[in-house]
Amino acid sequence: MREVAIIGAYQTRHGNHSDRLLRDLISEAGNGAIKNAGIDRKEIQAVYVGNYAGQEFNAQNTMGSYAATILGLGNRPAQKLEGACASGGLAVRAGFLAVATGIYDTVLVLGVEKMNTKDPETTMEIVARGQDSDFEGGFCISGPSGFALNAIRHMHEFGTTREMLATVAEKNYFHGSKNPYAHKQKAIPLKNILNARVVTTPFGFHDMSLVTDAAAALVITTREKAKSISKKPVLIKGSGHGADYFTLSMKKTSVAFPATIQAAKEAFGMANVKHSEIDVIECHDCFTITEIINIEDLGFVEKGNGGHFTLEGHTRLGGKLPVNTSGGLKAKGIPLEPRELGK
Amino acid sequence: MREVAIIGAYQTRHGNHSDRLLRDLISEAGNGAIKNAGIDRKEIQAVYVGNYAGQEFNAQNTMGSYAATILGLGNRPAQKLEGACASGGLAVRAGFLAVATGIYDTVLVLGVEKMNTKDPETTMEIVARGQDSDFEGGFCISGPSGFALNAIRHMHEFGTTREMLATVAEKNYFHGSKNPYAHKQKAIPLKNILNARVVTTPFGFHDMSLVTDAAAALVITTREKAKSISKKPVLIKGSGHGADYFTLSMKKTSVAFPATIQAAKEAFGMANVKHSEIDVIECHDCFTITEIINIEDLGFVEKGNGGHFTLEGHTRLGGKLPVNTSGGLKAKGIPLEPRELGK
Repeated sequence: MREVAIIGAYQTRHGNHSDRLLRDLISEAGNGAIKNAGIDRKEIQAVYVGNYAGQEFNAQNTMGSYAATILGLGNRPAQKLEGACASGGLAVRAGFLAVATGIYDTVLVLGVEKMNTKDPETTMEIVARGQDSDFEGGFCISGPSGFALNAIRHMHEFGTTREMLATVAEKNYFHGSKNPYAHKQKAIPLKNILNARVVTTPFGFHDMSLVTDAAAALVITTREKAKSISKKPVLIKGSGHGADYFTLSMKKTSVAFPATIQAAKEAFGMANVKHSEIDVIECHDCFTITEIINIEDLGFVEKGNGGHFTLEGHTRLGGKLPVNTSGGLKAKGIPLEPRELGK
Repeated sequence: MREVAIIGAYQTRHGNHSDRLLRDLISEAGNGAIKNAGIDRKEIQAVYVGNYAGQEFNAQNTMGSYAATILGLGNRPAQKLEGACASGGLAVRAGFLAVATGIYDTVLVLGVEKMNTKDPETTMEIVARGQDSDFEGGFCISGPSGFALNAIRHMHEFGTTREMLATVAEKNYFHGSKNPYAHKQKAIPLKNILNARVVTTPFGFHDMSLVTDAAAALVITTREKAKSISKKPVLIKGSGHGADYFTLSMKKTSVAFPATIQAAKEAFGMANVKHSEIDVIECHDCFTITEIINIEDLGFVEKGNGGHFTLEGHTRLGGKLPVNTSGGLKAKGIPLEPRELGK
């Protein structure tokens, strides 16, 4: 496989963009990334779009060709990839593999979600369709209640506490307060987080992520081409794709994400780097427990020790392994998971 | 790139499956293809699912992992690909490329759509979200009225007639009458087709395709592995992916599909076969004009001559270039396009 580099990147401000059209977010992010790459858009050969539920949130499906057309690339092969919260990751991986294997030399990858609807219940219902509707939808199993099961079991098996969960939120709000693109740019004291109203045990209001609108884009090309364009190309050293059973009752564990374990193993193997060489982690933190389990399953912290490690401050900016310095989904915002229900 | 073969295939009966669960269609098609391949499902390394709007038709999104889980493959990397009517094609191409480039050796590709809803207007609205909602949705531009513009212009420029369009329908109904998997298995006389009520000029009721529920699946592997498993592996000799501007007003032509031209050029180039070596064509025929334009743009018939060629009977079973011998979307059914509106 060929070596692959990112030569352009752009993200819109994350937030509530109810006053903007979906196509405007796509335009800002896509054109921003092309401009950042400093190439003529004619050099882009294909477009990969990650989107969860545009047809429900925005009455717009077929987002691949839709986005390509907005960016003057309508005659480029385009596709939408969807895998719930991993939709953007799938698009990045598809674009990466296309360049690495020589299908295309230069591609645009774009992720977009504009998930604010007229009422939070509609947003919640749409998000819940990323789980097994037949078996779980009727029993109010959605993101919050599903991940709450992980949290409760992790607390039971490893002594993880509410304070450890809250520390993830406090840290990520703090990180978000320093990120001009974040949805929430305000630190919140641990005490307030711990005292927030309960949403679903053991999660309080601040254990959950935001209802966010945003778009982000990358221009990806071969390392060879990147060298002639960019002084500082960012290499994608490794990529992995794991999965777990979709239906909660079929999962073999509640305290680990086999998908993370598998994907990390593949990505580290491809990159041929050691854990000790990694300086910073950005990982999924749709709920506070998610970050704790992910840093374990990525292989940085022993299983069961993620909460303790967090409480000790190691994942904070300046700590030995800063995690989600952008603010994560918690504060930067996740254009997918709902939190502000009933607010 | 490695040579790639299909070793297993299965399709459900196409039709109205309102009495069956979505997961049942997936189970039948996926298990059918695995059984047809004669391999242990453990050998399947990844799952690619083409689906247009499961979250709207069936309240089920994230169809990649959903389908993988139903088939006992929940821990395999899975993804949903969407590109309106081309969703299934995108999934086949993604699976093909994954095997051809060595990412995986054996994959399952599955397409599913269960589009019968409680009322045809809901189905129509969902399908229309595959076009530009901002610019066209408000003006009743949907599949039928959009493709009608192609038909009217093709008639104007090349003398294509209503009878030529109707001959596509008559032929495909005839083909469908011989296909036990087809939705409509009944030949319909040309006269009835010509006299059917007008839906949108110049299309009558029979120029359009069906509201169909179905699933189909393939098991794809390397040619080398296929030789040891199957006596008759079907090689995928070439694949191409083209596109055109999404928004109708940005298209440069109404009488050709640049996406078809581009995809055909790539696929023929990869396969290194001549047009004269092709025995049969299955192509998109969501409306009668679609088949006429496609056989031109695939390079089998001179531009403008598709209707005349059809009227002369060359695309019929036994003719010199049989097209859509399955019955096509017209009669076999398209699990995507609506026809029976107001019926």
